[in-house]
Amino acid sequence: MQGPIESLIAQCRPGWSLERDFYSDVEVYRREMDGIWRPGWLFAGHGCEIPRAGDYFTLEIDTDSILVIRGENQAIHALHNVCRHRGSLICDHPSGHANRLVCPYHQWTYGLDGSLLACRGMQDNLDKSKFGLHRVQAQEVEGLIFISLAAQSVAFDTARQSLAPLLRPQGFARAKVASTMDYLVRANWKLVWENNRECYHCNLNHPQYIKANFDHYNADDTTPRIQQEIAAVVAQSETKWADAVLAPAHRQTGMTVFPDAEHHIWFSANRTPLAEGYASESMDGKRVAPFMGDYRDASVGTLRVRTLPNFWNHASCDHGVSTRLLPAGPQLTAVRVWWLVDQNAVEGRDYDLAKLTPFWQLTSEQDWRICERQQRGVNSSAYRPGPYSTYKEYNVESWARWYLNVMREGVGGNCQ
Amino acid sequence: MQGPIESLIAQCRPGWSLERDFYSDVEVYRREMDGIWRPGWLFAGHGCEIPRAGDYFTLEIDTDSILVIRGENQAIHALHNVCRHRGSLICDHPSGHANRLVCPYHQWTYGLDGSLLACRGMQDNLDKSKFGLHRVQAQEVEGLIFISLAAQSVAFDTARQSLAPLLRPQGFARAKVASTMDYLVRANWKLVWENNRECYHCNLNHPQYIKANFDHYNADDTTPRIQQEIAAVVAQSETKWADAVLAPAHRQTGMTVFPDAEHHIWFSANRTPLAEGYASESMDGKRVAPFMGDYRDASVGTLRVRTLPNFWNHASCDHGVSTRLLPAGPQLTAVRVWWLVDQNAVEGRDYDLAKLTPFWQLTSEQDWRICERQQRGVNSSAYRPGPYSTYKEYNVESWARWYLNVMREGVGGNCQ
Amino acid sequence: MQGPIESLIAQCRPGWSLERDFYSDVEVYRREMDGIWRPGWLFAGHGCEIPRAGDYFTLEIDTDSILVIRGENQAIHALHNVCRHRGSLICDHPSGHANRLVCPYHQWTYGLDGSLLACRGMQDNLDKSKFGLHRVQAQEVEGLIFISLAAQSVAFDTARQSLAPLLRPQGFARAKVASTMDYLVRANWKLVWENNRECYHCNLNHPQYIKANFDHYNADDTTPRIQQEIAAVVAQSETKWADAVLAPAHRQTGMTVFPDAEHHIWFSANRTPLAEGYASESMDGKRVAPFMGDYRDASVGTLRVRTLPNFWNHASCDHGVSTRLLPAGPQLTAVRVWWLVDQNAVEGRDYDLAKLTPFWQLTSEQDWRICERQQRGVNSSAYRPGPYSTYKEYNVESWARWYLNVMREGVGGNCQ
Repeated sequence: MQGPIESLIAQCRPGWSLERDFYSDVEVYRREMDGIWRPGWLFAGHGCEIPRAGDYFTLEIDTDSILVIRGENQAIHALHNVCRHRGSLICDHPSGHANRLVCPYHQWTYGLDGSLLACRGMQDNLDKSKFGLHRVQAQEVEGLIFISLAAQSVAFDTARQSLAPLLRPQGFARAKVASTMDYLVRANWKLVWENNRECYHCNLNHPQYIKANFDHYNADDTTPRIQQEIAAVVAQSETKWADAVLAPAHRQTGMTVFPDAEHHIWFSANRTPLAEGYASESMDGKRVAPFMGDYRDASVGTLRVRTLPNFWNHASCDHGVSTRLLPAGPQLTAVRVWWLVDQNAVEGRDYDLAKLTPFWQLTSEQDWRICERQQRGVNSSAYRPGPYSTYKEYNVESWARWYLNVMREGVGGNCQ
Repeated sequence: MQGPIESLIAQCRPGWSLERDFYSDVEVYRREMDGIWRPGWLFAGHGCEIPRAGDYFTLEIDTDSILVIRGENQAIHALHNVCRHRGSLICDHPSGHANRLVCPYHQWTYGLDGSLLACRGMQDNLDKSKFGLHRVQAQEVEGLIFISLAAQSVAFDTARQSLAPLLRPQGFARAKVASTMDYLVRANWKLVWENNRECYHCNLNHPQYIKANFDHYNADDTTPRIQQEIAAVVAQSETKWADAVLAPAHRQTGMTVFPDAEHHIWFSANRTPLAEGYASESMDGKRVAPFMGDYRDASVGTLRVRTLPNFWNHASCDHGVSTRLLPAGPQLTAVRVWWLVDQNAVEGRDYDLAKLTPFWQLTSEQDWRICERQQRGVNSSAYRPGPYSTYKEYNVESWARWYLNVMREGVGGNCQ
Repeated sequence: MQGPIESLIAQCRPGWSLERDFYSDVEVYRREMDGIWRPGWLFAGHGCEIPRAGDYFTLEIDTDSILVIRGENQAIHALHNVCRHRGSLICDHPSGHANRLVCPYHQWTYGLDGSLLACRGMQDNLDKSKFGLHRVQAQEVEGLIFISLAAQSVAFDTARQSLAPLLRPQGFARAKVASTMDYLVRANWKLVWENNRECYHCNLNHPQYIKANFDHYNADDTTPRIQQEIAAVVAQSETKWADAVLAPAHRQTGMTVFPDAEHHIWFSANRTPLAEGYASESMDGKRVAPFMGDYRDASVGTLRVRTLPNFWNHASCDHGVSTRLLPAGPQLTAVRVWWLVDQNAVEGRDYDLAKLTPFWQLTSEQDWRICERQQRGVNSSAYRPGPYSTYKEYNVESWARWYLNVMREGVGGNCQ
């Protein structure tokens, strides 16, 4: 890398893509881990994956294995999955159920909240209260679990207050996971986000997605016919739903503006209408599962949630799709995609995976291919930052500003 | 690495092999990329691979993907394969045909010469003339394409004037590719060259090659019988060919002296007789394809061309074999070998791959194994530079001097 | 790594496990290579693998390939497997037989002791006496071969005097290799040793091992019944064997104390009784091969040998099992396990691999899984050194002290 990170940040021009080193340099990556990924609130998984006390899943953040486990009274505990005796991993399954957390090496035994209960074979004067598993901050909001590796307590209230009302009718807390797919995308995590923050690429790359949505129309190409169409769809919903939470919040073509770089707003949710004839983000627009949550009608468009640095979700009346990013190196991102349906839906009877998953599987994989091609290009010595479209890439520009602000300040990207 | 590159260079003794770090150190490799591979003229491929306007192939040099494309009026364009918008790779196929170069991400569209033709969705005031693809220097000489990533214009005239007359009768511009083979050789690129620059290793390693050639006889072991044999073969050719271009230029046993380290001569070509009974470098010495180029007779021996840092070719009356090196790391070299025949030759009727390819496939693969074994050995802490044979390794010595001169001066190895 | 190695060493608290960087940092690894692995005496293999002059095997230590070959008069030569001409590896097979060592590149030819015999093609004034293969120190003691890459001569006499009498009756010099298994364990070599130095983990991890042995009982859990049992077994042996070498030297439960960190004692051997009913470390305790060496009776318990930094062996009356570690990176260890039986034993008639190998194959693989899980845990930013059990991990504590002493002094770990 040419010079320190500060001078690299200073080189970036507003309205232009980032400098090359941001996508490959190992020092930049370390700074991101320490300044964004460790302090920030990260989406970990869904509460419905661990409904009973003792249910757990694990995830890897940078060098760390984190255990997310349901405790007594529905509490969520996030713990470093590392024995306090000699450092062995405690659970090496990606998910499971345990009444006690027993280290497989020497059977040190912890409670679901990480407290050390037993360590047979150790000297009697060992003070067990000092050897509980190191704790990680955790929050559950309407069925979504977020964690933070920050040493200091990090506020979550504003995010909760903003997200909860919009999330509630979707019923993720009463959902079940119908399918998951895991990807190792050979691209820097920021390329994945930049791709997510614009629909300029949608027309030719996402033939399925653009049939269902209005995002790819922008100030330069929204025709009167399209304006009429979206107005009609919006009106239809608003008539039906007096409730502000169910009525569309995003009434134009193009994408919702996010993030808000200047105010460090790292979360947002909104409801967006689907195209005429689309009850769900599915291949033919028809419902692919029973209604979720409070919905009794398909006219709710899509609920869209996104939280920086690692989560987005598109949810229709019948199913929701979550995407979680976890960097695995400067040029590698581990991505998991979940399909969620109502907890009472039965596969084969109420839904069919062959109809549920293709819309977002195709759209996701189309994007991973784009990101990998871009990574190979930005690695070139000939790569130079290029100009963003003011019509179509306003969110990429906001995203880059958010990122540069956080990197400049050297503190957590989503501390409120 | 012990100390900076300069002191490493200073440690090298004339007549002895290079110090260990030259074969594995990452700083040495970076210096080579910047001082030899980027500024130098690199063999890219054959003009006959891209005969029509819009035909292209790509290759990887260091971190860069380069697109070599035939333009209008037979022009050759070499372009950085990186979109000026957000840096995506434009062509991710190794070869193909395109009327326009359209970036798959947002459809920015370029002409065959790299000029930006369209970027729908961008603001109107964008000056398209400033966003053409970054150009790479390219030259075609008698069907061989060379490129240079140098920022400054690099002279090619002397090379062209020297090589063209010798290349012309071979007719590579009127050839076709009959076969290619790709290798990832786990050895530093210099080990591959050092192996190429001597035939001391031929006797036991290349049983096929030594039957056809005189290279492996040297001052210490050329017997009167061998001298008579080569004199007879030379005389036969000279009688037939008054034309200096077709008559053998190299009339002794042993290898042509190359490179000329003191004058920075990075290219050479010469004609060398084959052993009695050999019409072609084939397993049994018989022709394996129709005559190429201007040849109407097998008595033309072999035309041999080599250019530093990455190309050599052995061509008989009926076929030519090109070898291209591209470093892929301090201990990894990507090698492509091409077999070329006359453009009108038809597989199955005029030539048979099972007869065409074995001679050089075997000889090449024998060498790759040698190089990989040597890499493992020079990695040892016990490796110390050893003495070159003055009889048999004079060219390795020249090669090492050429290399050290270029590294010392820190500029392009083959700038005339 | 936080600061230099010295400050890292200074951070370590007696009685607690090592700091995180010791298990992953590349600078620590380099220091270990230079301070422990290169100067130290390393177990290389068994003399019975290379019985005749010209028999050889190779092994990789750090970047170096070492050739261990039987010379004339039963001498053992250890040589750098690197030609003095241009550095090629000479033998690239893991084992074989050669009357002369001929480099495959240019046929430089060496004797079994590494002296250069011929280099045809070189100038006449080359002084062959200066181009013998670089030698490595080698010692054979009762069929076990040790080597040292130290530049200076390293004493071996004390080790030989201590080990030889105990090794002799086992007859490794008159043995044969019945089977070998190779593993690449994804863990730092020290985790493998720390695992080896305690049996606190045995109860649940080694169901086979604990049936045969008393190691897993310690001061905190040895009941009178167990004390009686071991006393009975010991008494039985002592009655039979007046000879101190055959009688058990370790008469308690728990593991022999090793290493002796303060006196740099890097080797030890002792005889330990097996549980009642166990004639051999086999699945059912029955013999699985004919008696080895001088044994005529099963009441010899197990002979146990260990040498730092890379060897241990458990030998019963009928077979011995050797384990050799070779680091292949900060988080990777190459392990080979050998099963040895009497040289006259015939597979199928005298022994059956399906009965011979499972006991130690299972026990070994159980340990590799433990070590790999621990490596993943100690990589976590949440890992902190934990307390050792004074009852059960006294040897791990000694081991850590030995290691830190050697690292602090920056010299060979096992120079007497």
